[in-house]
Amino acid sequence: MGKVVTFGEVIMRLSPPGYNKMKQSHSLEFFFGGTEMNVAASLAQFGLNVQHISNVSDDFVGQAALACMQGYGIDISHIKKVNHPLGLYFMEVGSGLRASQITYNRLHGAFANIKPEQVDWETILDGCTLLHWTGISPAISEGAYQTLKQGLELALSKGITITADPAYRSNLWQYGRNGHEVLAELCRLSTVFIGGVNEVNEILGTQFTQDEEGFKAAAQKLIQDMPNIAKVYDKVRTGLSATHQKIFAQAWDGKTYFKTSEIEITDVVDRIGTGDAYAAGLVYGLETGMAVAETIAFANAACALKHTIAGDVNLTSVAEISEVAQGNVSGRLKR
Amino acid sequence: MGKVVTFGEVIMRLSPPGYNKMKQSHSLEFFFGGTEMNVAASLAQFGLNVQHISNVSDDFVGQAALACMQGYGIDISHIKKVNHPLGLYFMEVGSGLRASQITYNRLHGAFANIKPEQVDWETILDGCTLLHWTGISPAISEGAYQTLKQGLELALSKGITITADPAYRSNLWQYGRNGHEVLAELCRLSTVFIGGVNEVNEILGTQFTQDEEGFKAAAQKLIQDMPNIAKVYDKVRTGLSATHQKIFAQAWDGKTYFKTSEIEITDVVDRIGTGDAYAAGLVYGLETGMAVAETIAFANAACALKHTIAGDVNLTSVAEISEVAQGNVSGRLKR
Amino acid sequence: MGKVVTFGEVIMRLSPPGYNKMKQSHSLEFFFGGTEMNVAASLAQFGLNVQHISNVSDDFVGQAALACMQGYGIDISHIKKVNHPLGLYFMEVGSGLRASQITYNRLHGAFANIKPEQVDWETILDGCTLLHWTGISPAISEGAYQTLKQGLELALSKGITITADPAYRSNLWQYGRNGHEVLAELCRLSTVFIGGVNEVNEILGTQFTQDEEGFKAAAQKLIQDMPNIAKVYDKVRTGLSATHQKIFAQAWDGKTYFKTSEIEITDVVDRIGTGDAYAAGLVYGLETGMAVAETIAFANAACALKHTIAGDVNLTSVAEISEVAQGNVSGRLKR
Amino acid sequence: MGKVVTFGEVIMRLSPPGYNKMKQSHSLEFFFGGTEMNVAASLAQFGLNVQHISNVSDDFVGQAALACMQGYGIDISHIKKVNHPLGLYFMEVGSGLRASQITYNRLHGAFANIKPEQVDWETILDGCTLLHWTGISPAISEGAYQTLKQGLELALSKGITITADPAYRSNLWQYGRNGHEVLAELCRLSTVFIGGVNEVNEILGTQFTQDEEGFKAAAQKLIQDMPNIAKVYDKVRTGLSATHQKIFAQAWDGKTYFKTSEIEITDVVDRIGTGDAYAAGLVYGLETGMAVAETIAFANAACALKHTIAGDVNLTSVAEISEVAQGNVSGRLKR
Amino acid sequence: MGKVVTFGEVIMRLSPPGYNKMKQSHSLEFFFGGTEMNVAASLAQFGLNVQHISNVSDDFVGQAALACMQGYGIDISHIKKVNHPLGLYFMEVGSGLRASQITYNRLHGAFANIKPEQVDWETILDGCTLLHWTGISPAISEGAYQTLKQGLELALSKGITITADPAYRSNLWQYGRNGHEVLAELCRLSTVFIGGVNEVNEILGTQFTQDEEGFKAAAQKLIQDMPNIAKVYDKVRTGLSATHQKIFAQAWDGKTYFKTSEIEITDVVDRIGTGDAYAAGLVYGLETGMAVAETIAFANAACALKHTIAGDVNLTSVAEISEVAQGNVSGRLKR
Amino acid sequence: MGKVVTFGEVIMRLSPPGYNKMKQSHSLEFFFGGTEMNVAASLAQFGLNVQHISNVSDDFVGQAALACMQGYGIDISHIKKVNHPLGLYFMEVGSGLRASQITYNRLHGAFANIKPEQVDWETILDGCTLLHWTGISPAISEGAYQTLKQGLELALSKGITITADPAYRSNLWQYGRNGHEVLAELCRLSTVFIGGVNEVNEILGTQFTQDEEGFKAAAQKLIQDMPNIAKVYDKVRTGLSATHQKIFAQAWDGKTYFKTSEIEITDVVDRIGTGDAYAAGLVYGLETGMAVAETIAFANAACALKHTIAGDVNLTSVAEISEVAQGNVSGRLKR
Repeated sequence: MGKVVTFGEVIMRLSPPGYNKMKQSHSLEFFFGGTEMNVAASLAQFGLNVQHISNVSDDFVGQAALACMQGYGIDISHIKKVNHPLGLYFMEVGSGLRASQITYNRLHGAFANIKPEQVDWETILDGCTLLHWTGISPAISEGAYQTLKQGLELALSKGITITADPAYRSNLWQYGRNGHEVLAELCRLSTVFIGGVNEVNEILGTQFTQDEEGFKAAAQKLIQDMPNIAKVYDKVRTGLSATHQKIFAQAWDGKTYFKTSEIEITDVVDRIGTGDAYAAGLVYGLETGMAVAETIAFANAACALKHTIAGDVNLTSVAEISEVAQGNVSGRLKR
Repeated sequence: MGKVVTFGEVIMRLSPPGYNKMKQSHSLEFFFGGTEMNVAASLAQFGLNVQHISNVSDDFVGQAALACMQGYGIDISHIKKVNHPLGLYFMEVGSGLRASQITYNRLHGAFANIKPEQVDWETILDGCTLLHWTGISPAISEGAYQTLKQGLELALSKGITITADPAYRSNLWQYGRNGHEVLAELCRLSTVFIGGVNEVNEILGTQFTQDEEGFKAAAQKLIQDMPNIAKVYDKVRTGLSATHQKIFAQAWDGKTYFKTSEIEITDVVDRIGTGDAYAAGLVYGLETGMAVAETIAFANAACALKHTIAGDVNLTSVAEISEVAQGNVSGRLKR
Repeated sequence: MGKVVTFGEVIMRLSPPGYNKMKQSHSLEFFFGGTEMNVAASLAQFGLNVQHISNVSDDFVGQAALACMQGYGIDISHIKKVNHPLGLYFMEVGSGLRASQITYNRLHGAFANIKPEQVDWETILDGCTLLHWTGISPAISEGAYQTLKQGLELALSKGITITADPAYRSNLWQYGRNGHEVLAELCRLSTVFIGGVNEVNEILGTQFTQDEEGFKAAAQKLIQDMPNIAKVYDKVRTGLSATHQKIFAQAWDGKTYFKTSEIEITDVVDRIGTGDAYAAGLVYGLETGMAVAETIAFANAACALKHTIAGDVNLTSVAEISEVAQGNVSGRLKR
Repeated sequence: MGKVVTFGEVIMRLSPPGYNKMKQSHSLEFFFGGTEMNVAASLAQFGLNVQHISNVSDDFVGQAALACMQGYGIDISHIKKVNHPLGLYFMEVGSGLRASQITYNRLHGAFANIKPEQVDWETILDGCTLLHWTGISPAISEGAYQTLKQGLELALSKGITITADPAYRSNLWQYGRNGHEVLAELCRLSTVFIGGVNEVNEILGTQFTQDEEGFKAAAQKLIQDMPNIAKVYDKVRTGLSATHQKIFAQAWDGKTYFKTSEIEITDVVDRIGTGDAYAAGLVYGLETGMAVAETIAFANAACALKHTIAGDVNLTSVAEISEVAQGNVSGRLKR
Repeated sequence: MGKVVTFGEVIMRLSPPGYNKMKQSHSLEFFFGGTEMNVAASLAQFGLNVQHISNVSDDFVGQAALACMQGYGIDISHIKKVNHPLGLYFMEVGSGLRASQITYNRLHGAFANIKPEQVDWETILDGCTLLHWTGISPAISEGAYQTLKQGLELALSKGITITADPAYRSNLWQYGRNGHEVLAELCRLSTVFIGGVNEVNEILGTQFTQDEEGFKAAAQKLIQDMPNIAKVYDKVRTGLSATHQKIFAQAWDGKTYFKTSEIEITDVVDRIGTGDAYAAGLVYGLETGMAVAETIAFANAACALKHTIAGDVNLTSVAEISEVAQGNVSGRLKR
Repeated sequence: MGKVVTFGEVIMRLSPPGYNKMKQSHSLEFFFGGTEMNVAASLAQFGLNVQHISNVSDDFVGQAALACMQGYGIDISHIKKVNHPLGLYFMEVGSGLRASQITYNRLHGAFANIKPEQVDWETILDGCTLLHWTGISPAISEGAYQTLKQGLELALSKGITITADPAYRSNLWQYGRNGHEVLAELCRLSTVFIGGVNEVNEILGTQFTQDEEGFKAAAQKLIQDMPNIAKVYDKVRTGLSATHQKIFAQAWDGKTYFKTSEIEITDVVDRIGTGDAYAAGLVYGLETGMAVAETIAFANAACALKHTIAGDVNLTSVAEISEVAQGNVSGRLKR
C-alpha cells in the first residue's frame, strides 16, 4: 500500500469541561488536532500508512503532541522540533442555540515559523500516493505557504494524487498575502477538489447559488479553469442548533452528479473535525479504489459519526462507518 | 449610569455531577445563586452598575460567596457577615421525563436572620435608579420581610423604579405570615410587575385563565388595583421535558399587548435561574431605555440562552443575547 | 411481606467517562450490576424484602460489590466469597447514531465457578414468595445452569412464583449446552414469562411475527406448551438512536391482551438495565397485587425512568414511577 | 455475638478537593460521618453486629445517608426520617503548617430535633451488650441530651457496658446547659471512660498535668468520683504538622498502667475520625475479650491507620490493624 | 487607607493534574497569576486597596482573567483589552527529587504588546502610596520596559514608596536590552529593594558571598550605589526537594541586620508564587507600619503558608499568617 | 543502533483515585503496563529502537493497549490480537503505614493463552541486539513459558545479549510447573542477571545473607553455576513506609564489586514499575556501552525518579536521569 502524506499545523485545543464558560472553570480538557493532522489520524485508524509533516515546539508540550500522533499510528519521523511554542486555541463549547466560540494563539507558533528548507519533500514524497492539504496552512504564514507550494509542485510533477480542501478563513491571512489568490494558485497544483459552492466562489470570485444546480455549475467552471482537477467532492451541512445537524455529500466527477441521502445528527458530542472526518473518508475511498457514490456515502457517514466522538479526531473504524454508510443509524448496543 | 440595587438571599446550590442521585455520588458541584443575586450578576455581565444587599455567613463559605459576587462585578460593600450558616439547597438534576428535585436548608441561615436595622437603605438607595425584589425574600422570615418593606417604602418615596417578581412558593412562608397578603402589600409598593396570570391569581385571589385574553385581563385588573404599577411583563413556559422547553414573553404597558415569538430549547444544560435571566433582561431594557417590544425580545432571548449555561447565573453577553433576540438560533461556531 | 429471591452474576461495568473511547481515556467509571441483581436492587428501593444469591471474588473488589448491594438494602447473607475474580465488562458508550459497545470478561469469574452444592436453596427459599431468574445465568457455565435448575425445581415444588426473563444471548453459551433447549427446560419450571415474540421464537423455534397479533399467538402457544406459565409480560422498544428510544408494554394473562401507551425517551442517560427495571416493575406489581394493566403501566414507566439514571440499577422510587405511569412526563422541577 | 448500639448525629462533611480553599473551588467531596456513627461503621467493618440510633432528614440527602450506613453494614432500622435538614459541616483541608478549618451547620438539623419519645430504647437495648456515646451528642440540643440520658439510664440498669467518649467542645453547648456538668452527669451513667487528662480536667474541674503521672492520678480520681467507671482508656497525640502526627495509647484498669509504643504517621490522608477509629478499636477489644494491653495496641493501630483513609470512617480490616499493632509499619505492597 | 498599585503581566498557568506529565494527561488545571498580580491579589486578601495595571486579551480568556482578579478584590479599571492572546505557561509539577518544568508562551502576548501611551500613570498614581514592580516585566518587551519606567519616574517624583523585586531571569530578555543594565536603571528609581546577594550580584556585577556577611556587605553596597533605596529585604531558601523546603528572611535597614527563624515546609502543595507571597507580606508590613523585624517575620510566614495553597496566589489571611509568624506551625485543626 | 526486544504480558492496572478503597470509589484510573512492556516503554523514551512481543485482546481494550504502546514509540507489529480478555489487576494504593494491595485477573487472559507457534522469533530476533525477559512471564502459563524458552534458545544461539530479571512470585505459578526450576532453566539461557541475594537463593536454593558479602558470594556462585551469565546487577530497597523508600544499586562484573550511593525518596507518587525502571536503566547502559559504575548509577537514578511518575512506566528522560545520577536531587524548578 502506498503512503498518504499530510502537511499542516499540529494545534492544541483547550476547552472548559462540559458547556462551561472559561470564567466559571478551573480546568481545561485538551486535545491535539489540526485539520490535516486530523485527516492523517483518521486514516491511520482506517489502517492506512500515513505520514504527517509539521513543526512542533521543542518542549514537553511538543513531546506530548508527538506522543499523541504516534499513538494514532502516524509516522512522525519528519516532524521537526523548533524553539517556538505550539499553536493552540481555546474553545467554549456551546449547546442548543448558544454557539461555540474559539480564540486562537497560533500566529507566532512552531508551525507559523516553518521554512521550506526544513522540509525534505524529495524524501517524503518517495513512495507517496496521495498528498493532502487545506486552506488553513497557507493562511498562517509566508513560510507555511512557501513550504506547501514546494511540496505541491514536486508532488504534481511525480503524478501523486493531491487532495485540496481549500476552505477560506477570513480571520487568518494576516501576513500580507491575498488568500483568494493563494488558494487559487495552490488549487491549480492539485488534482481533487474538496469543497462546494462557497469554496469555488471564494477562489474564483464567482457567484454560484447554494443548490444542486449551483454546485454542478461551480464544479464545471472549476474544472474548466483548473485542468489538473478531475473531481469535486462536497458536503452540505444544515445546522439546526449547536447540537443538532444534518449533512449530505455530493460530487461531480466531470460527467455525473452524485448525492447521498441526508443524515440527521442529534446530541452532538463534538462538532470539531467533522469536515476533516469527511476528507479522511474521501481519501480512504480514493486510496482503496471505491466508486464515487460509495466514496461519498462513506465520507458522509464518517463525518456524521465524528459528531459523536470527543476531540478533533475521528476515532471510529471502517466497520462502524460502513454500517452507517449502509443506512444503519439506530445506535443499537453491540455486545 | 445609575445603580441597580437587588436585595435577597445568597444561597449555595449543591448538585451531584451529571444526572446522578445523591446516593450514587461522592462529590457535589456547587454554585452561589439566589434569585435576586442572579439578576444582579447578569446585569453586571451586561456592564451595569449593580449592588446586592444581603447577609452571608461569617466563615470561609461566606467569604467564597463574596468572592464569587465580586468576580461577577457586583458591589458587595453593603453585605454583612453574620454568625449564622449560609443558606443552601441540594438539587438532583433530572433529565427527560425525570424531574429535578430540590431540598432546602435556608430557614435558619444568614439571610433568614437579617434585621431591618442592619441595612442602611438611605445610603444604599442614594444614586439608585432601580430596585429589584422577588417573592422569595419576604417568604423566608419576618426579618427579611420587614427589611425589604423598609427598602421599598424608601425607594418608592424617592421615585426609584421598583421591579417586583412576586412568585409565590407555597413550601416557604413557614414563619407565620400569609404569603398572598404580604406579596400584595409589597407589590403595591412597586412600579413594574414581573409575572402573569398565575402570579396575579395568587396575589389578588382572582381566577383569570392561562391564555392571551386572561393575561390582558389580569394585567388590567392588577394595574387597576395597584396604581403604582405601570407595566406588566410576563414569560410563558411550556415544559416538554426536563431537557426540552419552549418560552415566549408577553407584556402589557397599560395600553398595548406585546408578544415575542416562541423559542424552543433542546438539550437544556441548566434550568435554574432562567426566570432570573428573564428578569435581568427586563431590567436591562428598562435601564437602557429600550422599547417594550425590544425589551421582551431581549428578556426572552436572555432566558432562552440561560438554559445553556451551567449554574444559577446567566453569563452570556449583551451581544450574544441580541443575536438570539434577532432570531439567530442556529448555534453556529464562532471562530 | 414475603421475600423476593434473585439469582445471578454480580458483574462490574467499566466505562470511559462521557462518550469517550477507551483509547482516549485514562479513567473508567464503574458500577456493580448484573441483570438479576439489578432487579433485586430496584425492588429494595421500592421497599421490598430482597435477597440475592451469587458468588463474588474473595478480594477487595468483591468486598466493594457486597458493600454496594448492602447499600441498596439487599440481603447478601447467602453470597459466597470465592477465589476467582469478579466478572466484569467494559463498555464504550455511544451517542446518537453511534452504538455503544461491550466486551466481557466473565467466563472464568466468581459466578461462572458457582456449584449447586454451594447454594443452600432449602434455607434460602424459606419464606420466599417470588424467585426471579434470567437467561443470562444458565448461559455462563454448567455450574450456574445446574445451580439455577435446582433452585427452580425446589421453588416450583413449594408453589413460589417464578419469574423467567429468558433472553437468549448468542455470544454467551460457550460451555457446550444448547441455549434454546436449556431456556425451554428452565421456562417449563417457571410461572411467569417475561418476554415477547423474539423470546418465544428463540425458545420454541417458532416464527411468530413482530406485531400485536404475533404476540398474542406466541403467548398462547407458550402457555399451551408450558403449563406452569400463567402470564406473559412483554415490552416493545423502538430504538431511534442510542439516545432516543420509545417503549410500550403489553401482556397476555391467558385471556386478555393489555397494552400501555408508548413513552418516548430523549436524552438517554444510561441504556443499561432498562429491561431489568421493567422486570422489577413487574415483580413489584405481582408482589403488591396490582392488576395486570396497572402492573404493565408501572413496569413500563419504571423502564422509561431507568433511561435517566446512570448505572445499571433503577434508583427511582415508587412515587416517581407512579407519577410517570399516570402520564406525567413533563419533568417539571420539584422544589 | 451481642449487639453494639451507638447514638449520635449523622452529619455530612463537605470539602473542596485536595488542599483547596472554598473560594478557589467549584466542587466539594462529601462523606457521611458523625463521631458515633464512625464508631459503628468501623465496628461493622470488623464484623460486629452494630445498630445506630439517630434522626436523618426526610429527603434525598437523608436517603443517601441511610444508604451509606447500610453499605457499611450498620442496622438502620431505628433511624427516623424527620422534616429537618441533615446536619453538615464544611472543611477546608490544611497541609503542613496550615491548619484545617471547619464550619458547622448542625444546630437546627434533623438530629438536633430528636426527642426522647422518638427513640424506643427498650426495644433497641434488647440484646445489646455495649452502648457507645460521646460528648458531642448532648452538646447539640436539649432533646439530644435527654434522649441520650434516657438510653444510658436504661442501659445501666440492664448491666450493659457503656463506653463514654466525653470530649468537651466549647463551640457547641449553645442551648443553655453547662457542658461540664452534663458530661459529668452522663459519665456517672457509664462504665468505661475514653479520655485522658484533658477530659478529666474538663469534667471534674481538676488540674492534672499532661504526663504519665498526671494521667494515672486523673484516672484514679475519676474512678473514685464515678464508681460505675471501671477503666480509663486514653490516647496521646503529638501534632507536628497537619500531615505529620505521632500517637500512643495508655490505660488504667483500676490497678495497672498500660502504655503502647508510639506510632509516627507521615503523609496524613485524612485526620478526621481518627479518635473514633481509636474508640472503635477499644470497643472491639472489649467485645472480643482482648486483654487491656492488646486492646490499646489494637486501638492505637486502628487510630494510626485511619490517618491513611479518606473520609470519616476507618475502612481498614481487623487483619490490617493487627499487623500494625504487631509493629509492621513498613507499608510493603501486598500482591 | 492609600492605594497600592502593581504593574505586570497577567499570565495563565496550565498544569496536568497531580504530578502527571503532559503526555499522560487529557486535562489541565489553570490559574491566573503573574508575579505582580500575585502580590496584588494577596494584598487584596489582606484587605488593602489594590489596583493592578496590565493588558489582557480581548476574548473570553481575557474576560476570565479579569473576572478572576475582580474576585480577588483587585481594582481592574485600568486594565486594557487588546487584540493579542493572553500570555501563558505550561508546568509539569515535580515531586521529591524530580523538578517541576515550565515552558512559556508569552513573548507575543497581550502584555508584551503594552505601550507607554496606553497607561495613564497620572490618574493611576493619584492616591497611590506604594508602587510594586519586578524584574519580569521589563524583561518581556521594550514596550513593557518603557511603560514601567514611565510609571517609576512619575511615582518617584511623587514620593511614592516603590518596591523593586528585580529578579533576573536569563531566559527572558530576548528583545535586545541588557537585563542587568535595565534592572540597575529601574532599581535606581525605587525605594525598597527586595532581594539578596544573588540579585545584587546580578545587578551590580559584584561577587558577594551567600552568607550573612555577604548579605550585609551587598546591602550596604547597594544603598551606597542607589541612594533612593533605603532598605533591603531578602529571603533565603534551602530546597531539599521539590516538596521539602526551608526558608528564612533577613533585612538591612541601613543600620541594623534583622533575621527571622527558619521555617521548614514539608508536603509542599504549590511552589509557585511563594516569592510573591513574601513580597506581599513585606508590602503589607510597609503599608501598615510594622517594624522591620515584625515585617520580615510576617513576610516569611506568608511565604511559608503559600507553599500550602494551590495556584499562584496566597489566599491565606492576615490572621493565619500572624499565627505562623508567632511560631505556631502545628497545623492543628480549627473547628 | 540495534533493536531491543521485550517479551511479556501487557496488563491493565485499575486503581481508585488517590488513596481510596474500592468500596468508597465510583471510578478507577487505569494504566497499561506489564513488567517487560514497562522496560520497553522506558527504553523508547530514551530513544532506543524497541519491539515488544505479546498478545492482546481483540476488542477495544486491546486496541487501547496497542495505541498506548504505539504512543510510547514501541514497535507493536508482532503483537497478536486474540479472542481472550486482556489481563488486568486492581490496586488500592496505600499511604504511609498502610500497604498497597493488588488483586489479579490474568490467568485466563490474552497473554496466558499465547502459544509458541504464534511468535515468529526468527523474524523478530533479526537485527536484535538485546532480549529482555522477567520471571513473571513463565509463571503465567505453560504457553508463555514455552514461547519464552524458544525465544531465549534462538537468541542465545545468535549471540544476542539476554537480560534476565527472574523475580519469583509465589502467588503465580498455578499451572503446574515448579517455578524455581523453570527460572533456573531460563537463567541458564541468559547472559545478564538482574537480581540479588533473594533471587539467587530462590533459584539455586541457596542461603546467602542479605549484605554486601552475601551478594558477592551469591553472584560468584551464580556465575559458576550458569556459565552464560557474565554480570550480576542488583538494587537494594529499604521501605520505610509506602511513601518513603531508600534504594541503592550494586553489581558484580565477575571480578569487581560496584555500589552506588543510596537515594532517599519521600512523597512517593507511584511505587509500581520502579524495578522495571531500574532494568531499563541497566539495558540502556548496556546498549550504549556505559561502564558498570556509570550503568548502575544511571539505573538507580532511573529507579528513584520512577517513584515520582504516576503509572507503570518511567516517563523521564535520559537528561533528567543523568542529572540525578550525578547527585542533583534538589528538585529545583526548571523554567
